[in-house]
Amino acid sequence: MSSAGSAFAQLHQHLHQTRLLGSISSALYYDQNTVMPAAGASWRGEQLALLAGQLHERQSSAEYAELVAAAESELDAEVSPERRRNLQLLRLELERQRCLDPALVSALAKAQSRGNAVWQDARKRNDFSAFAPALQELIALRRQQASQLAAAEPVPRSSWEILAQPFEPDISKTRLAELFGPLKDELPAMLDQVRAIGSTQPPAIDLPEALQEQLCGDLLDSWGYDPARCQRSRSAHPFSCTVGPQDFRITTRVVPGQPLSAFLATAHEWGHSLYEQGLPRTDDHYFPWPLGEATSMGVHESQSLFWECRVARSRAFAERWHPRFCSALGSDPWSGALGFWRALNPLRPGLIRVEADELSYCLHIVLRFELELALLEQEMPVEELPQQWNQRMQDLLGIQPQTDSEGCLQDIHWAEGLMGYFPSYALGHLISAQLSETFEQTNGSIQAMISAGDEFQLQAWLGQNVWPLGRSINAEELVKKVTGRPLSAQSFLTYLRTKVAELQ
Amino acid sequence: MSSAGSAFAQLHQHLHQTRLLGSISSALYYDQNTVMPAAGASWRGEQLALLAGQLHERQSSAEYAELVAAAESELDAEVSPERRRNLQLLRLELERQRCLDPALVSALAKAQSRGNAVWQDARKRNDFSAFAPALQELIALRRQQASQLAAAEPVPRSSWEILAQPFEPDISKTRLAELFGPLKDELPAMLDQVRAIGSTQPPAIDLPEALQEQLCGDLLDSWGYDPARCQRSRSAHPFSCTVGPQDFRITTRVVPGQPLSAFLATAHEWGHSLYEQGLPRTDDHYFPWPLGEATSMGVHESQSLFWECRVARSRAFAERWHPRFCSALGSDPWSGALGFWRALNPLRPGLIRVEADELSYCLHIVLRFELELALLEQEMPVEELPQQWNQRMQDLLGIQPQTDSEGCLQDIHWAEGLMGYFPSYALGHLISAQLSETFEQTNGSIQAMISAGDEFQLQAWLGQNVWPLGRSINAEELVKKVTGRPLSAQSFLTYLRTKVAELQ
Repeated sequence: MSSAGSAFAQLHQHLHQTRLLGSISSALYYDQNTVMPAAGASWRGEQLALLAGQLHERQSSAEYAELVAAAESELDAEVSPERRRNLQLLRLELERQRCLDPALVSALAKAQSRGNAVWQDARKRNDFSAFAPALQELIALRRQQASQLAAAEPVPRSSWEILAQPFEPDISKTRLAELFGPLKDELPAMLDQVRAIGSTQPPAIDLPEALQEQLCGDLLDSWGYDPARCQRSRSAHPFSCTVGPQDFRITTRVVPGQPLSAFLATAHEWGHSLYEQGLPRTDDHYFPWPLGEATSMGVHESQSLFWECRVARSRAFAERWHPRFCSALGSDPWSGALGFWRALNPLRPGLIRVEADELSYCLHIVLRFELELALLEQEMPVEELPQQWNQRMQDLLGIQPQTDSEGCLQDIHWAEGLMGYFPSYALGHLISAQLSETFEQTNGSIQAMISAGDEFQLQAWLGQNVWPLGRSINAEELVKKVTGRPLSAQSFLTYLRTKVAELQ
Repeated sequence: MSSAGSAFAQLHQHLHQTRLLGSISSALYYDQNTVMPAAGASWRGEQLALLAGQLHERQSSAEYAELVAAAESELDAEVSPERRRNLQLLRLELERQRCLDPALVSALAKAQSRGNAVWQDARKRNDFSAFAPALQELIALRRQQASQLAAAEPVPRSSWEILAQPFEPDISKTRLAELFGPLKDELPAMLDQVRAIGSTQPPAIDLPEALQEQLCGDLLDSWGYDPARCQRSRSAHPFSCTVGPQDFRITTRVVPGQPLSAFLATAHEWGHSLYEQGLPRTDDHYFPWPLGEATSMGVHESQSLFWECRVARSRAFAERWHPRFCSALGSDPWSGALGFWRALNPLRPGLIRVEADELSYCLHIVLRFELELALLEQEMPVEELPQQWNQRMQDLLGIQPQTDSEGCLQDIHWAEGLMGYFPSYALGHLISAQLSETFEQTNGSIQAMISAGDEFQLQAWLGQNVWPLGRSINAEELVKKVTGRPLSAQSFLTYLRTKVAELQ
């Protein structure tokens, strides 16, 4: 590393403190969602706002800008590409922070919090018109934000693209249209195919909470969960969060009437956590440096989906775990391993994104992506949203919501003005599929490995090829590097075609 | 309240932020002791140090000093005594902060952390001589701290007294000698009396963890535990902590071989929490103002001991809960309610303070108080500590430790240079007893109330007479106000005499 007095060393120290503050917020967030009593919410909100203010100040202060500039001036021809990349990423983020008018930042924060409150109420009362003005204001503010941020972008980008950068660096809408095109073309037909066969409702199974907890614990134990570095709790919505360089948390929930939900959510969140645990942590990849971070939300999601869909929903895995579920329960309500596998893989297009199966999930995303573009860049009036939503649901999924609450009011994202995020969920599916295909080309069948109880080979491969890259390259570069070809929807569609055929 | 622009209002805002920061530390502390994985400790230490640094800066900055001075200058003849008292307490604390040489503060922090590490090791190896130099250094630094703080004291105080102020405001060693005298005179004889009768070992009972958890939950439910404001978790050592004005946490632990430990600890920590929940929260007693705080550690302890000793260890309570324990367990290993009551009240002098019974507990404290005085003010060489400890144990409790690990190395307090704290534990017993006596004089027997399942009357009385006082008066003034007479050991000794007679 650099000598203690160098600008780079001072910057290191500054980022270390920034990361300490940020991780305090993560710890409070974890507490809030796992144990905090409800009445603590308002004080917790103030604690988080205080930390957010401190973080914002640290990341946009003149002192910090000088530190970055001084470290840049130390760069010479011999400097490592990693250090250069770290400084590039910091510079980009700094320029973005500095482009923003503080008055806009504050107006946005207020509109987001108001938007959330109005949305909660409007969704409850199924009253889109009550939410429309708040959404209109959020869109206007986000457009304004994008236009301020445009000055910092290294290449020209549209409003939507600018807002998507924090989640999916370097993404463009043309590229997304290219990636999503085959999904729009092929998935509706596959859905029809499944519908024609008629998927039977899985039997109603009561899997007691304590058993679900135990099976989730067994799953994690078999996947190398280390209680000295990890903690699992319960929360209303499952999530994964990193509280320190050696402190990883995940949460799950038990959903009444969905006996496999906690198990699959555990696999999913553990996939996120494994990626975080495997991020590089030395030298220029040090925890608080950009290179020590995940490269994109899409790649993050690819890791969680890998463990949820490629492993936990696989036939081989169902065969291995079916006896354990039956023995825990003392009976076999699935009538065999095949029934258990089917129960892990319901294929039924539904109205709600977060409950969607592997086949329809990406169509939910395509719909949202296209509506975001229409709202932000194509002057679509907010009032048209319900009708447009319902029409597109019909076109893509062949079903229509009866109410806006289970239609365009279902997600929290827009209620807080969050636009540009949804595509990462779908990219996660594509990336996960393409990585899996490459893994199998060199290492043989994932199913065979699972049958042999050898999932550590999968971990080892990801831990060697994916996780250590940190933010050294972006998501598409990562896919190209690991799989040898550009990201596309083909691996994902192939995987789905096989699965649908097998499940029939 | 004051107008928004007043110095008082600005001070209010400053204290609000200070309290937000302090309560973030509390939340991190709670997380650390309940769920944080072990490997998270070092990062957590850095997070807490960062917050401690910010807190120290806020509380000793020139800007804060100016705010206090400006608010003082707004005081006029019409100002409420509460506001005057708030400012007096802030001024005193500020002067104390400003007396301290930052170099000493930092030297102390380092010595404390070193002291803890050396002590952990010395205790494990039963090697006092390894710990002695660290203790010597801590005593020297604490003496230096006391001499710097002396300038801020409103009245002349000895070194030990100055160090005790944060825990027990206005306490003096003469007063403590007066209060502890009767304990030294009478308790050893009572112990002999108990010894002469011979207390039988309680039967070894295996009360499964899940049952203990359930009984602790039942206890709290019966005492008005509100899950919307409270949270109970498990930790290695039971504690109570306040994370926000509407966010109260307690923890308990299940101790193998001690089937009633978790139950009694729950009663104890809930007593602490009830006091915190009952502190005044409006106007000048607002959460971040001094008047919204507990007045002393002794009063705090009196509240926990009230619920643990006066209620949960009482005969009436044993009679009410014995059937519930038996029914949970499916058998009666105590052979009746009397046996259960005896099991809740073991009277056996032992070597370890934290395991001591009601009879010997205060003697453990007297011993430590006198040794602190000897070390800090009477030039007792550190090397003499083990011999002095053992001799005094023999004199007061009639037993001697075989090793220093179960003697003068048993507590963490001195290992971190914490002196002046121990007496509060004993004061808690005295205050609790005197409050109880007064309660019974006006409201009738506590036992009768417990038999009738009417513990809310006790809560209501404390909630009316004790908790709302906050820091408006000190511990002794509180006792005088509520009981009509100065604090003394008499109520406590009367209580113990009755209990010993009944238990025989």
